Amino acid sequence: MTNSFYQHTDTFLVSVDCVILGFKDNELNVLLTTRKIAPCKGDHSLMGGFVFSNESVNQAATRVLTECTGIKDLYMEQVGTYGEVTRDAGARVISVAYYALVDMDFFDDSVLDLYHSQWYSLNNLPFLIFDHKQMIQEALVILRQKTATTPISFHLLQNKFTLPQLQSLIETIFQHTVDKRNFRKKILSMEILNKQEIKDKKSSKRGAFYYIFDEEKYNEMRRNGFYFSI
Amino acid sequence: MTNSFYQHTDTFLVSVDCVILGFKDNELNVLLTTRKIAPCKGDHSLMGGFVFSNESVNQAATRVLTECTGIKDLYMEQVGTYGEVTRDAGARVISVAYYALVDMDFFDDSVLDLYHSQWYSLNNLPFLIFDHKQMIQEALVILRQKTATTPISFHLLQNKFTLPQLQSLIETIFQHTVDKRNFRKKILSMEILNKQEIKDKKSSKRGAFYYIFDEEKYNEMRRNGFYFSI
Repeated sequence: MTNSFYQHTDTFLVSVDCVILGFKDNELNVLLTTRKIAPCKGDHSLMGGFVFSNESVNQAATRVLTECTGIKDLYMEQVGTYGEVTRDAGARVISVAYYALVDMDFFDDSVLDLYHSQWYSLNNLPFLIFDHKQMIQEALVILRQKTATTPISFHLLQNKFTLPQLQSLIETIFQHTVDKRNFRKKILSMEILNKQEIKDKKSSKRGAFYYIFDEEKYNEMRRNGFYFSI
Repeated sequence: MTNSFYQHTDTFLVSVDCVILGFKDNELNVLLTTRKIAPCKGDHSLMGGFVFSNESVNQAATRVLTECTGIKDLYMEQVGTYGEVTRDAGARVISVAYYALVDMDFFDDSVLDLYHSQWYSLNNLPFLIFDHKQMIQEALVILRQKTATTPISFHLLQNKFTLPQLQSLIETIFQHTVDKRNFRKKILSMEILNKQEIKDKKSSKRGAFYYIFDEEKYNEMRRNGFYFSI
């Protein structure tokens, strides 16, 4: 199928690098591994891998994400493509970065040993190879934009969450505190959270009711012109 | 430099495709060419080209943009990477899409002949090859998001523009009308437009004062926590 137009040009290794984010104990964390090969052997790196010729770039990212987390169907989105000539000292590699959001309570810790990986707080990142720090920073910019206008941040919580848990997540993503009363009023006025009968009593004596995000209702409202805003 | 880890994997042709947008007569337009090679010979396509091994992906996009418009240093941004296995029937090509904003009055029409290219209104697009229509649609989503929160849309106007021209552009980007009084109040209250002494008298008898965007002041305000909002 390849005609001469297509044969006359340079080809490249293409990789995916995944900014896998999780939220625990009021901190955002990213899953990192240590590199087992030169260059930069032993340094910290995002989870990644090469794209194979029998898969799309998105499929490669899905494969890496499923392998590294043990979870299928994670929420993921492209961050951007990093194509500087000398970004990888080992070879010319063009890398497509993705970010993915993980419910850390659902995460299977046994994969950590398998991939020599570990969660690191974004407040305390080690030195990272190549442009991986830039990938994390650009992923966070997108996460903040999307958090303000869509309910994607809910992917970082369990299916059932309390309003204090959601508020803590939002404050962590935006790196500033939020007025509790206004926050509750705004989030509940959208009528996309279903209050449950049971309370979380671990975090406070009085307890806090659990809520479940009504995704079906939200999608229906969106089709009718509703905009999420936090 | 290449070690065995890097040698064991598949390589790909990588291209850039550019969604080059211009604004004229109250319409957003995109620059298209007709394909001179199979597959899809004669069909319409975005302006694009392959990435060469001696340049970064962004440099390839800059090269294509400069060649196809005759203008250096255009505002451009990545839209995303399109990596489906069968997206290009000619060969496996992974394409990075960019959008760029052009002041059409500054555009040199002589490049149109050179590249068999032509401006098409977004309201009246011809059939486009591969996933190029999707690239345009996704570029417009980003353009709308960015227009709401940054002054990037000004790149589509001449250096000196009137408020009716800016309003028409904003209405075209968002595909809905805007209240004139509120729009003027909001845009002027940000104090980032410098009123000129001269008027545009072509569009109305009364005329409309020209304004110039004060980019330096805007950057200074941003550093102090100011957010553009339209």
